[in-house]
Amino acid sequence: MELLEQRIKEEGIIIDGHVLKVDRFLNHQIDPILMDAIGEAFTERFKEAGITKIVTLESSGIAPAVMAGLKLGVPVIFARKKPSLTLGKGSYTAVVRSYTKEETNKIYLSADFINANDRILIIDDFLAKGEAVMGLIDLVKQADATISGIGIVIEKSFQDGRKRLDQLGYPIYSLARIASLSETGVEFLQE
Amino acid sequence: MELLEQRIKEEGIIIDGHVLKVDRFLNHQIDPILMDAIGEAFTERFKEAGITKIVTLESSGIAPAVMAGLKLGVPVIFARKKPSLTLGKGSYTAVVRSYTKEETNKIYLSADFINANDRILIIDDFLAKGEAVMGLIDLVKQADATISGIGIVIEKSFQDGRKRLDQLGYPIYSLARIASLSETGVEFLQE
Repeated sequence: MELLEQRIKEEGIIIDGHVLKVDRFLNHQIDPILMDAIGEAFTERFKEAGITKIVTLESSGIAPAVMAGLKLGVPVIFARKKPSLTLGKGSYTAVVRSYTKEETNKIYLSADFINANDRILIIDDFLAKGEAVMGLIDLVKQADATISGIGIVIEKSFQDGRKRLDQLGYPIYSLARIASLSETGVEFLQE
Repeated sequence: MELLEQRIKEEGIIIDGHVLKVDRFLNHQIDPILMDAIGEAFTERFKEAGITKIVTLESSGIAPAVMAGLKLGVPVIFARKKPSLTLGKGSYTAVVRSYTKEETNKIYLSADFINANDRILIIDDFLAKGEAVMGLIDLVKQADATISGIGIVIEKSFQDGRKRLDQLGYPIYSLARIASLSETGVEFLQE
């Protein structure tokens, strides 16, 4: 997605040569017009996949997921990083390690909103080692729902998350694929 | 907002007679079509206010704020509950107490994205005692920006948050105003 690559080049900040900070349009300040275009791109890719729900992770996945949900006409569920007040059928839980933040989180998804008939599109902001997406896959599988697609805003293709997901056979669509990050800038994979 | 009141009546769950759980369309599962209507309602109310940015709090404020931001044509910044990797001009911080969750959080807003020329619309999902919104006001004031409006999805009018904000003189627009909550149901203020 050329518009997104351009924004990453112009506004992304590279820390220590390997962390990409896009707080100017995605992770802290959000550009709603860009999110709308991102939602459109995911919709274009997955509109024939029979998606019934989108699952994402708070907080940075919410904006792109809601824009895609609006266009696909399906609800969005965001997995939480803290347990909710208990009620209903209870929660599915998974463990996610964040290498960037050097912490491990449990994530939660209510069993009330997802079932074996659902065809799920997982959307997340970043794919690096794949920990967060693997956690979301774990939650969806606990509900016996089908994973019909994975949409990623920014993929660090030089880390092994994409390979892990490809090996599992899921249809993956990453809008920006970063081949390398260094003090001098960002290089994208040429498709 | 009649559509919202109807959804609260039909899908809200009242816990212990005083906590309203709307996990079915706002706080865990999100209905993007409802969020779009909510964004439209905030836009209609504040479109003449010269808003330059929306400030909200992760995670449940993000969906309504991004929909309003898209329609108003302005960026959204979500205050974080955890500090980010430091860089740029640093962060503003405020303390927010959640009575529902019985916890106190520090919230953070980067000084990079807000300045004295900004006219801010604060958007949040709930207004009860006003702690979260007061925290957001505190952050915006630290940046010397102007608070030009406050948009609330669900106001518990029987708690004192609305009164606190009215006393400060800010234009407030709450889409659903709850007069009372009890085991038997929800009553709305009639405007």
